[in-house]
Amino acid sequence: MSATPFGEHLVCQVGLIVENIERTAQKYCDIFGVEMPPIQVTPTYDVTQTTYRGEPCDATARLAFFDFGQVQIELIEPDMQPSVWRDYLNEHGESVHHIAFIVKDTGAAVAYLAGHGIDVLQQGLYGDRSGMYTYLDSAPALGVMLELLENFPQPR
Amino acid sequence: MSATPFGEHLVCQVGLIVENIERTAQKYCDIFGVEMPPIQVTPTYDVTQTTYRGEPCDATARLAFFDFGQVQIELIEPDMQPSVWRDYLNEHGESVHHIAFIVKDTGAAVAYLAGHGIDVLQQGLYGDRSGMYTYLDSAPALGVMLELLENFPQPR
Repeated sequence: MSATPFGEHLVCQVGLIVENIERTAQKYCDIFGVEMPPIQVTPTYDVTQTTYRGEPCDATARLAFFDFGQVQIELIEPDMQPSVWRDYLNEHGESVHHIAFIVKDTGAAVAYLAGHGIDVLQQGLYGDRSGMYTYLDSAPALGVMLELLENFPQPR
Repeated sequence: MSATPFGEHLVCQVGLIVENIERTAQKYCDIFGVEMPPIQVTPTYDVTQTTYRGEPCDATARLAFFDFGQVQIELIEPDMQPSVWRDYLNEHGESVHHIAFIVKDTGAAVAYLAGHGIDVLQQGLYGDRSGMYTYLDSAPALGVMLELLENFPQPR
């Protein structure tokens, strides 16, 4: 059994930052022969309580998800406000932004990673408040940004 | 059934380019609580018959693989000769280099992608010649480089 917060080490998502989500999503549909998913818009701070580098963040993004087996490809088109998404696009252009893992306890995972010198970059609730995401400053150590996804228990 | 060459659309690998594979691999071991995998060195052209942008390519790379469920994380440290790895590192720094899919017929997949305006960047045999890989110039369309992996049928 692993003592890390990453369970079975299952990468569940690869996230890409794009300039124009309709354009890139259509390419995925054409090339992989899949249907166009809905384009979701993340709500603003009052819903998501997003923080970026410790400060409240009103940036939003437009999202599209493609399920490729275990792995979901997430396309992210940021708005122009500073965020982990916009700043990455400005610095790196269109490219892979993060790989994501499911965790059961974000606080424990964040504390574990802090012990390895890896800090939180951005954190917020899902748009439907059914869970939370946390982006971490892991690229200097691991070559890629990690995202933690915690899905809250749902009432039955 | 899909008419694309990507089968069940299973992403099987996320490849990262790194400056120092021992350093980054050790970070993966520390953070994910896994054992250090062997560092493999790709053979030279006489074994792999690598081509880069259509020309024979004698570049090599050092590789390490971590299995995270369905998805393998591949670390790649290129040598200094021009290759799809070295040129990516020079241009982008340490970052995600590709996502990979298993295909049964590389030729058919390459022809299919050519029909979508996506060309081959680099191609070669695995170091043990048990299969072949193909990197494609898909980033302008899809935001990420694709790699096709074809595992040759093995004699029983």
